[in-house]
Amino acid sequence: MRSSKIYVSKTLKPRNPILLVGLPGIGNVGSLVGEHLKSELRAKKFATLYSPHFPHQVIMLKSGGIRLVSNRFYLWKNPAKEKGARDILILVGDFQALSSEGQYEINEKIVEFFKGLGGKTIYTIGGYNTTNQYVQNPRVFAVTTDRKQIPQLKAAKIIFGQASGMIWGSAGLLLAFAKKHKLTATCIMGETGMLEVDAHAAKAVLEILVRHLKLKINLENLEKISQETEKMVKQMEEAVKKEQQGPTKEHFTYIR
Amino acid sequence: MRSSKIYVSKTLKPRNPILLVGLPGIGNVGSLVGEHLKSELRAKKFATLYSPHFPHQVIMLKSGGIRLVSNRFYLWKNPAKEKGARDILILVGDFQALSSEGQYEINEKIVEFFKGLGGKTIYTIGGYNTTNQYVQNPRVFAVTTDRKQIPQLKAAKIIFGQASGMIWGSAGLLLAFAKKHKLTATCIMGETGMLEVDAHAAKAVLEILVRHLKLKINLENLEKISQETEKMVKQMEEAVKKEQQGPTKEHFTYIR
Amino acid sequence: MRSSKIYVSKTLKPRNPILLVGLPGIGNVGSLVGEHLKSELRAKKFATLYSPHFPHQVIMLKSGGIRLVSNRFYLWKNPAKEKGARDILILVGDFQALSSEGQYEINEKIVEFFKGLGGKTIYTIGGYNTTNQYVQNPRVFAVTTDRKQIPQLKAAKIIFGQASGMIWGSAGLLLAFAKKHKLTATCIMGETGMLEVDAHAAKAVLEILVRHLKLKINLENLEKISQETEKMVKQMEEAVKKEQQGPTKEHFTYIR
Amino acid sequence: MRSSKIYVSKTLKPRNPILLVGLPGIGNVGSLVGEHLKSELRAKKFATLYSPHFPHQVIMLKSGGIRLVSNRFYLWKNPAKEKGARDILILVGDFQALSSEGQYEINEKIVEFFKGLGGKTIYTIGGYNTTNQYVQNPRVFAVTTDRKQIPQLKAAKIIFGQASGMIWGSAGLLLAFAKKHKLTATCIMGETGMLEVDAHAAKAVLEILVRHLKLKINLENLEKISQETEKMVKQMEEAVKKEQQGPTKEHFTYIR
Repeated sequence: MRSSKIYVSKTLKPRNPILLVGLPGIGNVGSLVGEHLKSELRAKKFATLYSPHFPHQVIMLKSGGIRLVSNRFYLWKNPAKEKGARDILILVGDFQALSSEGQYEINEKIVEFFKGLGGKTIYTIGGYNTTNQYVQNPRVFAVTTDRKQIPQLKAAKIIFGQASGMIWGSAGLLLAFAKKHKLTATCIMGETGMLEVDAHAAKAVLEILVRHLKLKINLENLEKISQETEKMVKQMEEAVKKEQQGPTKEHFTYIR
Repeated sequence: MRSSKIYVSKTLKPRNPILLVGLPGIGNVGSLVGEHLKSELRAKKFATLYSPHFPHQVIMLKSGGIRLVSNRFYLWKNPAKEKGARDILILVGDFQALSSEGQYEINEKIVEFFKGLGGKTIYTIGGYNTTNQYVQNPRVFAVTTDRKQIPQLKAAKIIFGQASGMIWGSAGLLLAFAKKHKLTATCIMGETGMLEVDAHAAKAVLEILVRHLKLKINLENLEKISQETEKMVKQMEEAVKKEQQGPTKEHFTYIR
Repeated sequence: MRSSKIYVSKTLKPRNPILLVGLPGIGNVGSLVGEHLKSELRAKKFATLYSPHFPHQVIMLKSGGIRLVSNRFYLWKNPAKEKGARDILILVGDFQALSSEGQYEINEKIVEFFKGLGGKTIYTIGGYNTTNQYVQNPRVFAVTTDRKQIPQLKAAKIIFGQASGMIWGSAGLLLAFAKKHKLTATCIMGETGMLEVDAHAAKAVLEILVRHLKLKINLENLEKISQETEKMVKQMEEAVKKEQQGPTKEHFTYIR
Repeated sequence: MRSSKIYVSKTLKPRNPILLVGLPGIGNVGSLVGEHLKSELRAKKFATLYSPHFPHQVIMLKSGGIRLVSNRFYLWKNPAKEKGARDILILVGDFQALSSEGQYEINEKIVEFFKGLGGKTIYTIGGYNTTNQYVQNPRVFAVTTDRKQIPQLKAAKIIFGQASGMIWGSAGLLLAFAKKHKLTATCIMGETGMLEVDAHAAKAVLEILVRHLKLKINLENLEKISQETEKMVKQMEEAVKKEQQGPTKEHFTYIR
């Protein structure tokens, strides 16, 4: 296996699909948003991207099986019958490419794949660090390849023109390749403050995104992911502490 | 030499071969099991895999010759005459690929090579860290691509569904590529506690593997590899100590 | 996207072009000279080089848009009508290739592209460290693939034969590939002393270059870039200080 | 430029050539031996190997010119008229490949190139660390792909079977690729003790090599390289000291 490949697992035909990209990154905001939407929308696995630019790892499953690390497309079939109704593809994953060469290869492949499905509009989700303290009321920033969208997104309380600097990885490169292939892409970023997993930033993005895409999603569950991820962060902190205090059983989990 | 290649050195035809993979990794459990089986079964060198993704090193031999670092397949011809009797290929080696790209290339190549020989079943051997202390009675964990095998392996005291996390390198990727190419693969892991060379974990795996594959191997020799590898570890520790105390003759062994 | 590509954005035809290369490097002398000439000559964007060997980043723009990191060719159409009048291509950029393989690929591509435009003469700009203190009156050193040019350049107070050691990146490799493809190339280096951004070295190079190429450029603006870049360096130093004193708002600017 | 290439600069036809390889490595023993033989035999440049796996650097020359870093073949035409007289190709260079992939590519290319010239016998030169103290009377060790040569080399006081461990880079890989392409190769190593430049080890190798190849070389000049390289090491040590004491003029020599 010498280059990245996408395997389509369902023969479903997405209708006018939108692509939402929620991959690991700053504050894990992208992953939280992607995984939450996938689970709330009960989206079905549609395609899997494998790549030699991901780490050479398989993940052990509770079933006693394994799966190779990947990025995965989940499809939500919009039940609306009217013309122009849009399905949603949600891209989530374990890792992003390790090298710059890998990032360029994978992200152009994703855009070409999505374009081949008739898709035209991409949203990538990320975190945007503004501080290293806890952010009480995270703002939502964005950049886009399509300036015509800015007024509408501004009306949805998304801030344009104030974020500056670089966007790394898929959240940024997908915009560049969308531009090259004449698609429209927008990167939506939740304000975050150096947390490993920032559910508050994810919640801020989700609220805006759900309204903007007119999705019917239980907003009460937003509290749940917020609590779950805070619990997860605490567990991680405790694991690190135990590690520093001395050996404990069953907390080493890798093999080669 | 720009990609990995396998050179077949014997024109022997393996019959219904099983592939056992014992490469360097955690606790060197894989290497210990592979080398022991190869030597006890007096398996003959069958093929050699060279790769530009291995370190650029040759090994000096006592004969005054050299050999390039490699992974090597050894073939054990099963003397049983009955239909369905299976030969065993044992894969051992000096290194695993240095990069993720190399790991993906080499491990798919191994699966394709083995499939080309008519092989259908792969066992990879590894270590599974559960602690950083000495493990008195190491358990044996496994994951598999073929859930139908789980009951039989559980009966052999192999634990399923309790190991979690990642498997790195060949021990894991071979399962992923076996799945892709419709072969069956199982990774068997000896519980280990951060030792460089853990013969106890290797012994635990060997006992189960020998019984499972119905091999006739002198179990008393298991003590020998246990002692040998513990001696090896002690020598390594002493070498490190001497290094810290000051210069000694003849313990630098590389050149470029 | 698996290899570097140059996209021509204008169908203008450069006439006898000279290539001036001002990319990031020691003291940012190259970038300062390139950006200043581009802006003073009001050169128009002519072509863009993208590469998977650059970092996987997009830059957020004040407009709310993004652009992928790149190297960019700007064209100055020489208004002179006489035969032999030469247009100037100025190459500036955000980054140089991260790997040695990338550097070799990109720099040969630049030479081939420029040769395809009928170009014959390249000047690369760099910094040359002679000290780690501030350099009051920076000298200008050069090396060239065309010894016939040395007397004329020496007359312009450029020092030959006294710089020694290595030249890294585009400033050096473009000379090597120019030689291979039978073009002429000269690397002009401003003496610098370990500054991040050394406008004095850039000014010294600019004065000589402008005279040598008989360009009509407002020399008073040289003071401006000098002051601007010194201000920039001070801001960077203050940002670093703040970072060390504790968290501040809005100084983290990346996302992935 | 995406892969390594060898450019032949002379149309001379080497007659039964032997290849002597003296590249940078442990104690710079290879470089010292190669450069000394090249200069004493007044060998002429025959071919140049460039590679994107070398550092992306050009070297500034005193003439005001530059050259790209490379490995270089020098040819010594044996004046003897008798049938079977052998010319010598000496390979020297600025660097070895930076990556393992580059090492495999370049070293197979060298063997194929040499085989294409009708060559059959390769000697690589290296250092062999046995201690980190000064070695008063350095021994000479060797490994070879051709066991038939061992008695003759042992008679020349070369020690076989006592060196152990790994050989890195060209000194080792050339033996592996020679074996693959049915040539004969021997690596001759001077005993050394962690010096940057070990002229004593080089001298020990040279004395044996000159006798073994029946070359007529002024042995008195051996003292000269010994002294020159010791002087070089001292200068390097002083440069390092000055660097630690504070800034000095003109000792930074790189640019990008």
